[in-house]
Amino acid sequence: MNGSATHRSVKSGLPPGTLIHIGEQSTHATAVRVISYSQESITEQQIGSSTEVPTMALPPSAVTWYDIEGLSDVEMIREIGERLHLHPLVLEDILNTSQRPKREEYDNYLFIVLKMLYPRDNGSIAAEQVSLVLGPDFVLSFQEGIRGDLFISIRDRIKSGKGRTRGMGADYLAYSLMDIIVDQYFTVLEEMGERIEALEEKVVAKPTPMTTREIHRLKRNAIFLRRAVWPLREVILSLERLESHLISAPVAIYLRDLYDHTVQAIDAIETSRDILSGTLDTYLSSINTRTNEIMRVLTVIATVFMPLSFLASLWGMNFKVMPELELRWGYPAALGIMTVVACVMLLWFRKRRWL
Amino acid sequence: MNGSATHRSVKSGLPPGTLIHIGEQSTHATAVRVISYSQESITEQQIGSSTEVPTMALPPSAVTWYDIEGLSDVEMIREIGERLHLHPLVLEDILNTSQRPKREEYDNYLFIVLKMLYPRDNGSIAAEQVSLVLGPDFVLSFQEGIRGDLFISIRDRIKSGKGRTRGMGADYLAYSLMDIIVDQYFTVLEEMGERIEALEEKVVAKPTPMTTREIHRLKRNAIFLRRAVWPLREVILSLERLESHLISAPVAIYLRDLYDHTVQAIDAIETSRDILSGTLDTYLSSINTRTNEIMRVLTVIATVFMPLSFLASLWGMNFKVMPELELRWGYPAALGIMTVVACVMLLWFRKRRWL
Amino acid sequence: MNGSATHRSVKSGLPPGTLIHIGEQSTHATAVRVISYSQESITEQQIGSSTEVPTMALPPSAVTWYDIEGLSDVEMIREIGERLHLHPLVLEDILNTSQRPKREEYDNYLFIVLKMLYPRDNGSIAAEQVSLVLGPDFVLSFQEGIRGDLFISIRDRIKSGKGRTRGMGADYLAYSLMDIIVDQYFTVLEEMGERIEALEEKVVAKPTPMTTREIHRLKRNAIFLRRAVWPLREVILSLERLESHLISAPVAIYLRDLYDHTVQAIDAIETSRDILSGTLDTYLSSINTRTNEIMRVLTVIATVFMPLSFLASLWGMNFKVMPELELRWGYPAALGIMTVVACVMLLWFRKRRWL
Amino acid sequence: MNGSATHRSVKSGLPPGTLIHIGEQSTHATAVRVISYSQESITEQQIGSSTEVPTMALPPSAVTWYDIEGLSDVEMIREIGERLHLHPLVLEDILNTSQRPKREEYDNYLFIVLKMLYPRDNGSIAAEQVSLVLGPDFVLSFQEGIRGDLFISIRDRIKSGKGRTRGMGADYLAYSLMDIIVDQYFTVLEEMGERIEALEEKVVAKPTPMTTREIHRLKRNAIFLRRAVWPLREVILSLERLESHLISAPVAIYLRDLYDHTVQAIDAIETSRDILSGTLDTYLSSINTRTNEIMRVLTVIATVFMPLSFLASLWGMNFKVMPELELRWGYPAALGIMTVVACVMLLWFRKRRWL
Amino acid sequence: MNGSATHRSVKSGLPPGTLIHIGEQSTHATAVRVISYSQESITEQQIGSSTEVPTMALPPSAVTWYDIEGLSDVEMIREIGERLHLHPLVLEDILNTSQRPKREEYDNYLFIVLKMLYPRDNGSIAAEQVSLVLGPDFVLSFQEGIRGDLFISIRDRIKSGKGRTRGMGADYLAYSLMDIIVDQYFTVLEEMGERIEALEEKVVAKPTPMTTREIHRLKRNAIFLRRAVWPLREVILSLERLESHLISAPVAIYLRDLYDHTVQAIDAIETSRDILSGTLDTYLSSINTRTNEIMRVLTVIATVFMPLSFLASLWGMNFKVMPELELRWGYPAALGIMTVVACVMLLWFRKRRWL
Repeated sequence: MNGSATHRSVKSGLPPGTLIHIGEQSTHATAVRVISYSQESITEQQIGSSTEVPTMALPPSAVTWYDIEGLSDVEMIREIGERLHLHPLVLEDILNTSQRPKREEYDNYLFIVLKMLYPRDNGSIAAEQVSLVLGPDFVLSFQEGIRGDLFISIRDRIKSGKGRTRGMGADYLAYSLMDIIVDQYFTVLEEMGERIEALEEKVVAKPTPMTTREIHRLKRNAIFLRRAVWPLREVILSLERLESHLISAPVAIYLRDLYDHTVQAIDAIETSRDILSGTLDTYLSSINTRTNEIMRVLTVIATVFMPLSFLASLWGMNFKVMPELELRWGYPAALGIMTVVACVMLLWFRKRRWL
Repeated sequence: MNGSATHRSVKSGLPPGTLIHIGEQSTHATAVRVISYSQESITEQQIGSSTEVPTMALPPSAVTWYDIEGLSDVEMIREIGERLHLHPLVLEDILNTSQRPKREEYDNYLFIVLKMLYPRDNGSIAAEQVSLVLGPDFVLSFQEGIRGDLFISIRDRIKSGKGRTRGMGADYLAYSLMDIIVDQYFTVLEEMGERIEALEEKVVAKPTPMTTREIHRLKRNAIFLRRAVWPLREVILSLERLESHLISAPVAIYLRDLYDHTVQAIDAIETSRDILSGTLDTYLSSINTRTNEIMRVLTVIATVFMPLSFLASLWGMNFKVMPELELRWGYPAALGIMTVVACVMLLWFRKRRWL
Repeated sequence: MNGSATHRSVKSGLPPGTLIHIGEQSTHATAVRVISYSQESITEQQIGSSTEVPTMALPPSAVTWYDIEGLSDVEMIREIGERLHLHPLVLEDILNTSQRPKREEYDNYLFIVLKMLYPRDNGSIAAEQVSLVLGPDFVLSFQEGIRGDLFISIRDRIKSGKGRTRGMGADYLAYSLMDIIVDQYFTVLEEMGERIEALEEKVVAKPTPMTTREIHRLKRNAIFLRRAVWPLREVILSLERLESHLISAPVAIYLRDLYDHTVQAIDAIETSRDILSGTLDTYLSSINTRTNEIMRVLTVIATVFMPLSFLASLWGMNFKVMPELELRWGYPAALGIMTVVACVMLLWFRKRRWL
Repeated sequence: MNGSATHRSVKSGLPPGTLIHIGEQSTHATAVRVISYSQESITEQQIGSSTEVPTMALPPSAVTWYDIEGLSDVEMIREIGERLHLHPLVLEDILNTSQRPKREEYDNYLFIVLKMLYPRDNGSIAAEQVSLVLGPDFVLSFQEGIRGDLFISIRDRIKSGKGRTRGMGADYLAYSLMDIIVDQYFTVLEEMGERIEALEEKVVAKPTPMTTREIHRLKRNAIFLRRAVWPLREVILSLERLESHLISAPVAIYLRDLYDHTVQAIDAIETSRDILSGTLDTYLSSINTRTNEIMRVLTVIATVFMPLSFLASLWGMNFKVMPELELRWGYPAALGIMTVVACVMLLWFRKRRWL
Repeated sequence: MNGSATHRSVKSGLPPGTLIHIGEQSTHATAVRVISYSQESITEQQIGSSTEVPTMALPPSAVTWYDIEGLSDVEMIREIGERLHLHPLVLEDILNTSQRPKREEYDNYLFIVLKMLYPRDNGSIAAEQVSLVLGPDFVLSFQEGIRGDLFISIRDRIKSGKGRTRGMGADYLAYSLMDIIVDQYFTVLEEMGERIEALEEKVVAKPTPMTTREIHRLKRNAIFLRRAVWPLREVILSLERLESHLISAPVAIYLRDLYDHTVQAIDAIETSRDILSGTLDTYLSSINTRTNEIMRVLTVIATVFMPLSFLASLWGMNFKVMPELELRWGYPAALGIMTVVACVMLLWFRKRRWL
């Protein structure tokens, strides 16, 4: 989960701009779908190997979406990058999946890095990097493609002509892709919210050592989420405010809406963090209170029975001359004394509010 | 209470601008009251179903207040939105009640989202979303309407002609609606303040495991309140400073006053948070101190009686040859030794300040 | 102490600008002193009831100070406000004593709200609101007047002609009033500083449950102080930097000095908070250390005497056939074994550094 | 150590600008040295009483340094202030040694307040105020002079003509004085760093109650240092960036260097604070771990011996009819049972990893 | 590790600009390599002593890299500094290795200070200072050279003509040097990440007193790293945004990439800090939970056996008249009573959920 620092050192000492795929290895090949569309028409082609890239059609006027899934084929990505005149550092960042979300402005395109989040079965969260390149009439999207393809619904919408996508430019397509990623965050957040609520119940009702472990895990998740979502806020804000011909005014309104969603997600994460902190404090208080209660019981028992046992032992001694032992009413008197001692103790405890 | 993250994922994958009501479901139908007023005259009409919307009168010059209560009738709200040329994203946000307080500027209207707060019986806090649309001569207000209608008093004031509302524009009406919402915050804050004060008393006087639970609940409330009120501050500040024909100079002075109230509310929330943090620390210290005290009693008792019991057991052994047992003054001597041991122990404790 | 949230809700639902006195009720009547002075001359008149206000003289050129003490007579204050053309929201804020310190600029006067602080006998801090209105040639000051009148020394200085006040304008008078309020803060801070120092001694030397309570109380005081003084800093800074004809350049230098004092006060408050936090941590550590020490004693005692008592009980059993009991040197041998066991235990403790 | 709040209240109620010496009283008289120097020549005169001030020579062109040590002679300082046309508030601040570090710009001079720090023998830190007034061709420096005179080395450098001072203006002299004060901070910081390192060793190796006290003391020192050094950063930054004829461009480069030193000092202080916080946490964890260990020993001992003692007592009962006591192998069997019980207990503990 | 504050005081009292080497002493001599290169040609010369500096060739047009390793030869560094007209304060900062990362702009060169980090064998982190001076056609680099030479790979790249370095200016060379330093951070961070993950496992599975010590050490490392890397972020950002002829536009893009790496490193450090804080909390909770569990066992054992032992002692008393002892079924009845008492206790514990 500490992803961004891991295996990053592989590149230590290599010249900047060297293309190496850093990240979880996928067994999938790299698949490229090129979809060109306008209000009226739509064409789709699939590219299977890097040798096909040079002959790839670049439609001049309509919107073209290069939808790349899987980063294992470095050669293919280099070819695409060169064909579309991308800066070597952009290609390096696409392949190195330990980037933070960011936005970079180049002369005639924008480079955007985002994180797609998936809940894992063991309760932790997996992140995959999605890189977007937005040009005046094209969008490139790069997914790692390990845990599935989130862009199916958008491809369907384009093909069927539903929604506004077909009638608008490349910027609206890029917005749609980002929107679907941010929507996915809420799925992750809701799952986490449910886990936290279950945890809060447990802490108060029946704290066990497992609870600590669970709080720790959720805290880590919150730290991880925070790190993925916070920079995104700035990225989207800067896109919305960008004075660039690449983002049109109507799409800026949609980006403002997307910005609101991001802020909502951050809000939910911060709330989770605050609640988790509170939960740990509550857990600690709760355990200390229980220890205190247990100690009180122990002390009451010990304080009552220790003097009694001492008295019993005392009269169990084998001294020859112990006159009280000879007395007829010695035994009942001893029992009486013991009862008095026990009652005095218990009254004292009641006075101290320990009972 | 973790509302904003809950059920938000229902929309995952749908195209932006799809209208779905997200939030607590109300059993009430959607009621629309259209009140047009000027200094001299006032008219009111009720609209019961979406088919009546197209024929709804739009008075040209006076101030018109469309007061909508209940969000269940999506069709009705769509109709109203279209009639008044609202952006689809505005309608989406009105229906999705997991928004943060925010302000958005459109060409000829302002869109404002606020949170109305209600204390629940179980001590937690319920929030309902209130959305306002402020145009040059109209105000739209959308309430969820689950826990009652806060705008009655304003409608009464308008009808009776009391206060300044009738003589001023739509901006003053919008201010009045926001003012009543912020006033309501203080009711919630005062109740919370009283709970905290009661809690502080308890923590010091008689901490119980219930106290932890109560602190945790109040902390959650404070986190929840904070999240509702903080963004409001920025919203109202930006309204006050907005250079727009929609807000007139005299109303800006009233907004400044409202801003002060919001800052007061934030202040009170932050103070509550600080005090609650302090209370938990005090509780923990208090419990630890009590445990320490109990341990001291236990230790004193054990340290005094363990050696005594040992001595008693010693002389209770059945060895044939134990000369001291035969002695006449053996028993009194044994009692004497025990007294000395006990006194030495107690003196040592007094020296250590444990008694 | 949670003043600003208390009773604020009384106004919930009333139209803005309604005049109601919110705050601690004083038994004093409202007293108005009107002092007009210039370098050469000085006149003073007292106004006892609201009917006298309309005939109140408004000297055209010299500096006039309307010194109002007590806020119970709402009618009187409304009359004064109307006579001097104050905005209704200003009057509302003067009467509602739960304001935060603030500064508001109106067309021809400045409205300033401050908090006067008094140490209470029980160790907590009382706050009273002081409102100032600074016009080109007049100053209005409103005190709650419950715990005495701090402005006596300034009236004396004006009457006797000492100091710079008589030779300077209304802005210098307003500065003098603020200066005396800020000076008073240091009295409160010094008392608190002394309490904290005494507390630190106690925590280290002899922590008692009372200590927790005292730390909690001082922390609350620090939170309360912070809330009163922080906004003041901004108020005075903005006054100093205000480009207004109401503040002359020489007085701006004095305001800069006052600003320094406020920052010093904030500094002292923040230091107190830091030290109090540290003190609570120290207390907790100290208590835990003591518990640890006590446990060590208990464990040593129990570990030494439990095996010994067991042995004694063992040889106190009544089995017919226990050959060692018959032995002549049985008893001394038993005592020897017990001594060895005790010594081994003690050596083991010494090795573990528990002794 | 809580200096800035102490005795400040002496002035409460006095008119602004009243000259009273607030601070630690020194037994030294106030000594004034007037050193005028240029690249070529140098003159020095001593002034012993306030009556000599009016006749004090004010050399027109060279740099003149008025080096005042000791603040007890208020009259002398007033005379100097008037002779050099200083603002009354400047004189008030020089005499009131509870100032924060600050910089004030007047028409033809700059007023700078700094704090000189000295380590005290008991481990705490003493602060003395140093005030500088920088004019176009003169520098006034005021030291409290209680713990010695730090400016000797600079006077020596000027007299001997070493270093750059003689060849440069008054601004370089002021820089040199500030530089020597900041250099002194590192002496204090290094001593504190060594104390912290020693403490860290102790916390891990052998925590004692004294450790808590030491951590608390060092934390207080860090708070105190922070308060002295943080505002200095801003002071020096603003001097460096000041667009004034009083600071020449070459000296601004030296001030930038001084600014770096201040930031380094702040860095070291913040690091110390972080480490001390960590140390306290480590201490608390360490103590809790030890308590846990002790408890484990106690529990093992008690759990093993309590059942054994019970069995021994059981067979020590005096019932007439206890058949097992009559048996020949009764005693060995009893010992056997006891051994089994003990072994079962120990195995159970080993399984639970308590042994 | 508290490096920046250590031995800094050696210079206290010396005039500014005095050249003294402050830092870890190396046994290596100072080695100077002068490498001049352009796209077509490359020359390299070695300088062994300060007397060779004045005759050192200064090639007019190509890029020249003065690569200095080891700071012990102060004279040599002074000579180089004078030859290249560096400001005395720059030389002072190069020799004083307790600098924070910073950037300073001089008329015709930039001075940059960075920290190179190395993991030490004992788990702590060592820092060495690297200073760069970037002129229009030259770069000076100063390494401490204690733990090896990181610039070998760059020299190799230049000599072999691989990568872009030969074809670009001095700014690209400076960027390459900084890039290699930042890359090294990730090696340190990855090692730390692995240690933290191992620690988290241990805290949950088997917390020992050693764990506290390890957490403390890692926390110190995180503080140390933070202090080295945070200021670097600002340094690189300001270089990227610098409007200077010294940084060309294409290199600014590379600097933006470097900035991203620095932010990634900071991100990883902050995450580590957050996780370590959480780990300590988890450790503390875990220990407290274990103590609670142990106490529960102790209390159960004591509460069951203390009354039983008391009863056994009771019937072991030697009173003459104890009628129940004479009874035939006395002993079985006694055993029965004991069993009942034990069962009642155990049921009570089960009800309280202690078993």
